[in-house]
Amino acid sequence: MTVALVGAGPGDPDLLTRKAARLLAEADVVVHDALVGDGVLALVAPNAEVIDVGKRPGRPVPQELISTLLVQLGRDGKRVVRLKGGDPYVFGRGGEEAQALLAAGVPFEVVPGITSAVAAPAAAGVPVTHRGVAAAFTVVTGHRRAGEPDVDWRSLAAVGGTVVVLMGVAQRATIVAELIAGGLDPATPVAAVCSATTGDEVTLRCRLDDLAAADVRSPAVLVIGAVAALDLRASTDQAGAITAGAVGAAVTNASSCTARVIAT
Amino acid sequence: MTVALVGAGPGDPDLLTRKAARLLAEADVVVHDALVGDGVLALVAPNAEVIDVGKRPGRPVPQELISTLLVQLGRDGKRVVRLKGGDPYVFGRGGEEAQALLAAGVPFEVVPGITSAVAAPAAAGVPVTHRGVAAAFTVVTGHRRAGEPDVDWRSLAAVGGTVVVLMGVAQRATIVAELIAGGLDPATPVAAVCSATTGDEVTLRCRLDDLAAADVRSPAVLVIGAVAALDLRASTDQAGAITAGAVGAAVTNASSCTARVIAT
Repeated sequence: MTVALVGAGPGDPDLLTRKAARLLAEADVVVHDALVGDGVLALVAPNAEVIDVGKRPGRPVPQELISTLLVQLGRDGKRVVRLKGGDPYVFGRGGEEAQALLAAGVPFEVVPGITSAVAAPAAAGVPVTHRGVAAAFTVVTGHRRAGEPDVDWRSLAAVGGTVVVLMGVAQRATIVAELIAGGLDPATPVAAVCSATTGDEVTLRCRLDDLAAADVRSPAVLVIGAVAALDLRASTDQAGAITAGAVGAAVTNASSCTARVIAT
Repeated sequence: MTVALVGAGPGDPDLLTRKAARLLAEADVVVHDALVGDGVLALVAPNAEVIDVGKRPGRPVPQELISTLLVQLGRDGKRVVRLKGGDPYVFGRGGEEAQALLAAGVPFEVVPGITSAVAAPAAAGVPVTHRGVAAAFTVVTGHRRAGEPDVDWRSLAAVGGTVVVLMGVAQRATIVAELIAGGLDPATPVAAVCSATTGDEVTLRCRLDDLAAADVRSPAVLVIGAVAALDLRASTDQAGAITAGAVGAAVTNASSCTARVIAT
């Protein structure tokens, strides 16, 4: 296979798949996003060319250029890894790159990655599904571009499962208002997991109606639903004894998010 | 860490995380489900004890017994891997096992896995999100146990994103009826991906209103939504030339699912 569209997972290089690690070690060229961390890039073959097409503020690389680059590299017969944070098909625009490669007749494959939509909540002790609590979860982006299909947040409020919002920090006031207008309880627990599975991970917990005013920093995964009251982490204190995470109770009494910031 | 709740991914051992592979190689005991394949189990340390608690028909292992076993093994100080198909927190009942370990004071960690909810569609050429087509996806189980919270399928029909159903083959007639009652177009494309990422993978495509009568075999992942009309796979024919997968057109004219079985 010439071009591999590879998911880099949520940040921790240990959460890369075996296949992704092998492809990185054998690559001639690696084309990566801004969200891919240094720990993952350290696995790239030393003699490989590494191209950063991260869409940083003020220096956006148009998607069409990235697709054109992949087609060109693929036609040159190089072993190309297109490395994307999380999973290539979960808001990664991998589908557009696959279409460009398909149209150009360049052989390619897709290698799934661990999506932060599931891994970030897990790192914070929150299962996105839980028996008796949530039998479904919806992953939705809060970031809307022109021409994107709308998501009916009010209908989503009535589904009854967990809502996981990626790239939604800037839009959170609107999202909260729509979900409450759709009938979701304003007291619904929320966990905001910032910089998941990296050394900077911070989880903030609050009620849905406190989320807009809370100090949440991007990149963050917002988990909205009854499961966000769970904190299934075993942690050892300095004496080595096990301290059980608070399961639920603290959230009910939380008057503001900042009171529940948990560094992990 | 004593007990690791580890996601084995969708089947292909190459889609295991690096961390999962290392934990399996170092384990004293591996406790696994029926859905975990031989390729993954081949990575277990040769001298490790392997316990199959797969819930096969006629020989169910109650969840409480599994949790008790994990607590006991953890207390014995063994390096225990609890290996689950997909991700431990995506309908894996990992949350219940985490709660049992937390209550017993046994140190544990959760290692996410690639969920088949995303990887199975990808293997069939279907991105669960796609720019201009789907800005959200919902993962839901069709398998209902007593005491489980309901999912409002009619509201789900109005959300506007992709619907991915796991363990829903037996209930598919009801699911289809509810989604159509909720306003989903009966002509909505469906891709049913059976035995994804294994050698037996078969994808069947049809309209939503043909799904109930279609010959779908468990385990299958049902993808419902406009993205299911995409087929983003590059494949080489016998002469080595690239043949582009049909993108959408065939689905519109499909009169029955069986006409569109695609072996991959």
